[in-house]
Amino acid sequence: MDNETEKLPILKLTETGSSSIEDMVAKESPLTIILNNQELVTLLCSPANLRYLAVGFLFSEGLLESKDDIKKIIVDDRRGVVRVETERDEELASDVLFKRFITSGCGRGVSFYSAADAQGQGKVESKIEISTLEVLALANEFQHRSQIHRATGGIHSAALCDTRNIIVFSEDIGRHNALDKIFGECILNDITTDDHIIITSGRITSEILLKVARRNIPIIASKCAPTNLGVRLAADLGVTLVGFVRGKRMNVYTHAGRIATNGK
Amino acid sequence: MDNETEKLPILKLTETGSSSIEDMVAKESPLTIILNNQELVTLLCSPANLRYLAVGFLFSEGLLESKDDIKKIIVDDRRGVVRVETERDEELASDVLFKRFITSGCGRGVSFYSAADAQGQGKVESKIEISTLEVLALANEFQHRSQIHRATGGIHSAALCDTRNIIVFSEDIGRHNALDKIFGECILNDITTDDHIIITSGRITSEILLKVARRNIPIIASKCAPTNLGVRLAADLGVTLVGFVRGKRMNVYTHAGRIATNGK
Repeated sequence: MDNETEKLPILKLTETGSSSIEDMVAKESPLTIILNNQELVTLLCSPANLRYLAVGFLFSEGLLESKDDIKKIIVDDRRGVVRVETERDEELASDVLFKRFITSGCGRGVSFYSAADAQGQGKVESKIEISTLEVLALANEFQHRSQIHRATGGIHSAALCDTRNIIVFSEDIGRHNALDKIFGECILNDITTDDHIIITSGRITSEILLKVARRNIPIIASKCAPTNLGVRLAADLGVTLVGFVRGKRMNVYTHAGRIATNGK
Repeated sequence: MDNETEKLPILKLTETGSSSIEDMVAKESPLTIILNNQELVTLLCSPANLRYLAVGFLFSEGLLESKDDIKKIIVDDRRGVVRVETERDEELASDVLFKRFITSGCGRGVSFYSAADAQGQGKVESKIEISTLEVLALANEFQHRSQIHRATGGIHSAALCDTRNIIVFSEDIGRHNALDKIFGECILNDITTDDHIIITSGRITSEILLKVARRNIPIIASKCAPTNLGVRLAADLGVTLVGFVRGKRMNVYTHAGRIATNGK
């Protein structure tokens, strides 16, 4: 965690005076991903688990499909560069790159809006069921896990869970990166995401939803709000979307059948 | 505001039961910006003030420099397309486009990391001074202005202020878009940003800071945290960065001389 925060001198002001103190701030660093000697993208991220982030990003963007595609991963933590070499060493067409890296106000890759991508995404199938109390318990544990958030207030978290436990946890200054770090860790360590639950600290927009559906994850929960497009995609792609998990309550926007209520 | 939210049927769950209610969700829509007949980018945004967003985006990305460059703006609200035609109708080199639209986890355009951009950005000069109490009053008014946020919980806001009043206010599902909408409105309506203050509801990352410095704005304040790179850029580019404006206190990370404390 030391590598992900920095202590800075600041001035704390109140209505009546000021004091010079030190404050802990989340680090933000560029990570350049090079795929088969081709510079692909530079992300701004928290400088930890760069290997997971690079691999998760490549899968989320559809540039890798199986762990077996990966021949070599070279991580240069100091320079913020991850090189990934694959078995199929094709040149990526530059128009593919361009289309992929168009961007949203708070996200990336609205590749979904190309019809091909939308049609290519199958529906998530899962018989998983979780109770209201289990969702609340997971969300509570999730809140307590974010050490950096408590120190700096400037970080997103994400977790892969089964109905009882957090299995993989990650933090990053970007909500997309936090998810991609989870996915990268799952892919590289052969942890299945099928029949599992994602908890995120951020809003559930269309891009987040699509990313989760691509990993075949049937449930996503957040203390924050979804957007209407996030809800529409969740409905279409078979994902249970739970928002506003706060205190003892939550809102289920789609596919509520997977959440067992007490009366059920 | 009706156009920016949608009512959806949801299931509200608590520890003891469930109820079917309607919930208000923020709309998320694609906006495609076409510059001189060239499709430039598709953003995901709140579908309002698309003209401002398109113009603000083009300025923030350095693709437009003066209002006089703009020959025509055609807005198609229904299809989510804004066409901008400029006086100089040059083709944009495709590598410029590619370099521009690389993206971060929660942002866009880390073009700053190209040395040219970093060196091109001059220091913000301003003799503006604002008191602690004035910052707290502005932040308080800012909080009360965000109607959509109160309805949906899923929206970012931004405002351009002088020391006493909010002059331009905007909301969007993306914190970058909310800022670009402010800048677009200022540019098209000849509202100066010099010697003014930006308040944002989001975290202050490097990209947000650079965007603000490019509009020559000397002070940025947020209820949220900055990143270390946001702080470093603020220090280098002469911007006063105020974070954690909450209740009756705030943290000043850089160039504190512009904030007059009571003892001063």
